[in-house]
Amino acid sequence: MSETKKIPWRTRLHEIIYEADTPAGKLFDVILFIAIILSIILVMLESVNSFDDKYHEFLNISEWVITILFSFEYIARIITVKRPIKYITSFYGIIDLLSTTPKYISLLFGGIHALAALRALRLLRVFRILKLVRYLGASNMLVSALKASRAKISVFLFAVLILAIIFGTLMYLIEGEESGFTSIPTSVYWCIVTLTTVGFGDIAPITPAGQLLATIIMVLGYGIIAVPTGIVSAEYTSQNKNNILRKKNKVALNSQSCAYCLAENHKDGAKYCHQCGHGLHP
Amino acid sequence: MSETKKIPWRTRLHEIIYEADTPAGKLFDVILFIAIILSIILVMLESVNSFDDKYHEFLNISEWVITILFSFEYIARIITVKRPIKYITSFYGIIDLLSTTPKYISLLFGGIHALAALRALRLLRVFRILKLVRYLGASNMLVSALKASRAKISVFLFAVLILAIIFGTLMYLIEGEESGFTSIPTSVYWCIVTLTTVGFGDIAPITPAGQLLATIIMVLGYGIIAVPTGIVSAEYTSQNKNNILRKKNKVALNSQSCAYCLAENHKDGAKYCHQCGHGLHP
Amino acid sequence: MSETKKIPWRTRLHEIIYEADTPAGKLFDVILFIAIILSIILVMLESVNSFDDKYHEFLNISEWVITILFSFEYIARIITVKRPIKYITSFYGIIDLLSTTPKYISLLFGGIHALAALRALRLLRVFRILKLVRYLGASNMLVSALKASRAKISVFLFAVLILAIIFGTLMYLIEGEESGFTSIPTSVYWCIVTLTTVGFGDIAPITPAGQLLATIIMVLGYGIIAVPTGIVSAEYTSQNKNNILRKKNKVALNSQSCAYCLAENHKDGAKYCHQCGHGLHP
Amino acid sequence: MSETKKIPWRTRLHEIIYEADTPAGKLFDVILFIAIILSIILVMLESVNSFDDKYHEFLNISEWVITILFSFEYIARIITVKRPIKYITSFYGIIDLLSTTPKYISLLFGGIHALAALRALRLLRVFRILKLVRYLGASNMLVSALKASRAKISVFLFAVLILAIIFGTLMYLIEGEESGFTSIPTSVYWCIVTLTTVGFGDIAPITPAGQLLATIIMVLGYGIIAVPTGIVSAEYTSQNKNNILRKKNKVALNSQSCAYCLAENHKDGAKYCHQCGHGLHP
Repeated sequence: MSETKKIPWRTRLHEIIYEADTPAGKLFDVILFIAIILSIILVMLESVNSFDDKYHEFLNISEWVITILFSFEYIARIITVKRPIKYITSFYGIIDLLSTTPKYISLLFGGIHALAALRALRLLRVFRILKLVRYLGASNMLVSALKASRAKISVFLFAVLILAIIFGTLMYLIEGEESGFTSIPTSVYWCIVTLTTVGFGDIAPITPAGQLLATIIMVLGYGIIAVPTGIVSAEYTSQNKNNILRKKNKVALNSQSCAYCLAENHKDGAKYCHQCGHGLHP
Repeated sequence: MSETKKIPWRTRLHEIIYEADTPAGKLFDVILFIAIILSIILVMLESVNSFDDKYHEFLNISEWVITILFSFEYIARIITVKRPIKYITSFYGIIDLLSTTPKYISLLFGGIHALAALRALRLLRVFRILKLVRYLGASNMLVSALKASRAKISVFLFAVLILAIIFGTLMYLIEGEESGFTSIPTSVYWCIVTLTTVGFGDIAPITPAGQLLATIIMVLGYGIIAVPTGIVSAEYTSQNKNNILRKKNKVALNSQSCAYCLAENHKDGAKYCHQCGHGLHP
Repeated sequence: MSETKKIPWRTRLHEIIYEADTPAGKLFDVILFIAIILSIILVMLESVNSFDDKYHEFLNISEWVITILFSFEYIARIITVKRPIKYITSFYGIIDLLSTTPKYISLLFGGIHALAALRALRLLRVFRILKLVRYLGASNMLVSALKASRAKISVFLFAVLILAIIFGTLMYLIEGEESGFTSIPTSVYWCIVTLTTVGFGDIAPITPAGQLLATIIMVLGYGIIAVPTGIVSAEYTSQNKNNILRKKNKVALNSQSCAYCLAENHKDGAKYCHQCGHGLHP
Repeated sequence: MSETKKIPWRTRLHEIIYEADTPAGKLFDVILFIAIILSIILVMLESVNSFDDKYHEFLNISEWVITILFSFEYIARIITVKRPIKYITSFYGIIDLLSTTPKYISLLFGGIHALAALRALRLLRVFRILKLVRYLGASNMLVSALKASRAKISVFLFAVLILAIIFGTLMYLIEGEESGFTSIPTSVYWCIVTLTTVGFGDIAPITPAGQLLATIIMVLGYGIIAVPTGIVSAEYTSQNKNNILRKKNKVALNSQSCAYCLAENHKDGAKYCHQCGHGLHP
């Protein structure tokens, strides 16, 4: 009977950490969400020299608090899951580990600059929480529209790249090094800056011939911007129609997560995991 | 009978100020429209130093004239409405008050710089007048198309923000402070400038690795510009279809405004307010 | 019988100048087209100082040749039309006159700078010729799609303008004069540069608060770029459908032009002008 | 019988070089693809001065290796084709020759700068390989959508050009030479930079009147960006529908290439070339 008591304890923790249907689970997600956002803001503020000089001690302590909090959460996640290896090697398991380690590493090797990037990965953790929330349907549609037009967009991007290399080489030959077109890679970079209508202006043609070619590149870029838009637009419209059809036989999903295989998107009232067949807690 | 005489006076004023079906009401709206536009131009001109130095006295007097005119209008609006509290606490009531006060405040505390913003709020008043006019249908369609795609656009903007933070951090690590990427927030700002294809050029990558990453960011920005366009386009097309269907059972609306609850969009020939049941004047 | 001989002479000239169905009419249009393009290139080259210094004499003579050619054409157009007043006061009549006069005016008053603009108007004459040519259908569709979405685009542009004024005022208050936001009009100008994703970079925010607001403006600009695209896209798609329907009961039009009222777009085989009832020459 | 032995040798080589259905053919295409990409990277690296100074010898040798490899391939292509003249004068035949010659020319005349452009043409060879591969359907759809909207896009680009010339002339008159608007061609160039929302910022208006006109140009550019998008979008949507219809009576194509006339896109199981009637090898 003590066995049955112990299981509810872990099951309850599992419910709190991995799901969002109970009040405690929702509260946990909200706190985690705030902690993630705070940790990102800390990473940003630390990089601002004038701020770091003044509040270095505060930033250091806050970072330790966040790190310890994330460490506890990581351990709790491993404990409550039935198959820890599966969690540790999953995408979110790796992100969780990487989000926790930077401060420990800095303890060993000193404050390495590149650790900031590791810490920025914490942002990816936000997706885990958001996955469970309200915009699910909308983002699914976006993603499936993008997936459907992936091949066409690849062709398009490849064509843009080839255009950029050809025009970049031409601009390099026409403009020369005085205008900033110092090499073909730089010239190709400028060409993409122009084709995408970003136009920094750090490099700009100054010879009449260069300006004429630039004009052609710009009008071309302006023209081809229509292509990906047209593709996604058409793809999205058809997705929209399919979606309406699908809504008719839609089922309600809850935020339960299988304790064995981490599978999600279970039907409301499902008793067994649709991926591994283990029982779900009620 | 003097009672019935008194009511027509307030009712007539109410009709002039709040509605646009009578010639007097239309004239009032036109004058108000011109006054609002003039007051906005005054705010703008005052900020131009060379202009303000020359015509300071003229600007000051004009501002007083506008302020007094708006004050009278505000008082008239309160008087003619049956429930003044409802008007005062409504959105337009607050805008009207804020539009009037800046000059009085400057009298007390001197010409504070920030009052210009308060005065710019007057522009919002234009919407009240325009609400009654011709582009009603068109703008309603726009607004409802935007509303329908709100969730999808939120997902999209959130994704753009996360991309900007991740790429911004990477650019900060790659480029360093020489190129202007002085901190992660600055780097994220640059990243949004680039993703949206604005490209000021005040900050621009100079290292080959930075330019390569910038290229990826730009092409990405170029690619994802298609997404909101596709969303709105699809949403708008379906709105367009619905609109054609709806037009068949369309009713004529007039510009009457209930004197009790300020409700608008009454059907032509309606005798009672569709919101509070009070009688409308004929 | 001499009367009938004289009429064919003017009728034939009318056919050559105003129409494009005969070989002579086509030749005239091609020559005129080349002359117009040449005259535009001359205006451009004259403005390039280094070119004008070297070839001033050549440019001067060429300009005289073009001017005299256009003068003869203008006179011929007046002579061959039955109602010269109607032609002279028509849109193209005025453009034709203005295109001819600059050189004569410069003879009287010397080379005024602003005459270049007058000469650039010649470009508008190209439309007259193109009207008669191949892309007729395509451009008609474009124009009618734009016309149909005119009201919606007006609402949209008005909203953009109001956004620009409100955000421009805020940026002026936040950034101050050090960053180039010297006045509200300048600030509004910057705001439109940013909203439209042009981004010159001559003015750019430097304070963190300013950069944050700029970020919001940019993302907004990025979002609302979808709106006009969606409008035109939807409008154009429906135009496309209507066009296919209309093609079934399409009639062949020729390039004849009524010698009395200048009306065009006559049906193939029409004997009388559909506007004024005068007979058309066969 | 030796005759029948000799033919298979050439036929087999033809299959390897021109087709991609056999393992050897696929391997050849992959090696060629890598060689082309490497040769393009070499051209780029050679233009980077700092890199060229260090690794000049390595670049020189690599270029010779690539050149000799391409030469052998060119000769093999001529040998295996039944009608060499047809191949040599075809588009890809000329590209193949031009891709091979630059190094030989530099041997005769020394390292001419412009040869880099010739070498960049190698990139076009990539299309030959890609033609045979997976994105065939997607790119065909893109190309046919662009072709269908060619006339409309031409009208649009012509209108943009005329707008740019008219506004460019006006900006030249308003701004003058202090702001960088030194001539009408420069001004037109700036106008296209602005209309296409590229916005380099190397030239920017500084007078109030110039900034006002710039605002109009930008909003116009922002508005008309919707036009080509709408066109391609509508065209693409209808292409999409046609494509679905067409898929029902679709046939499987293989990558065989006729040894006589170089025609491709043969049906699976076809025995004779659909262009010249010669037998295809099985």
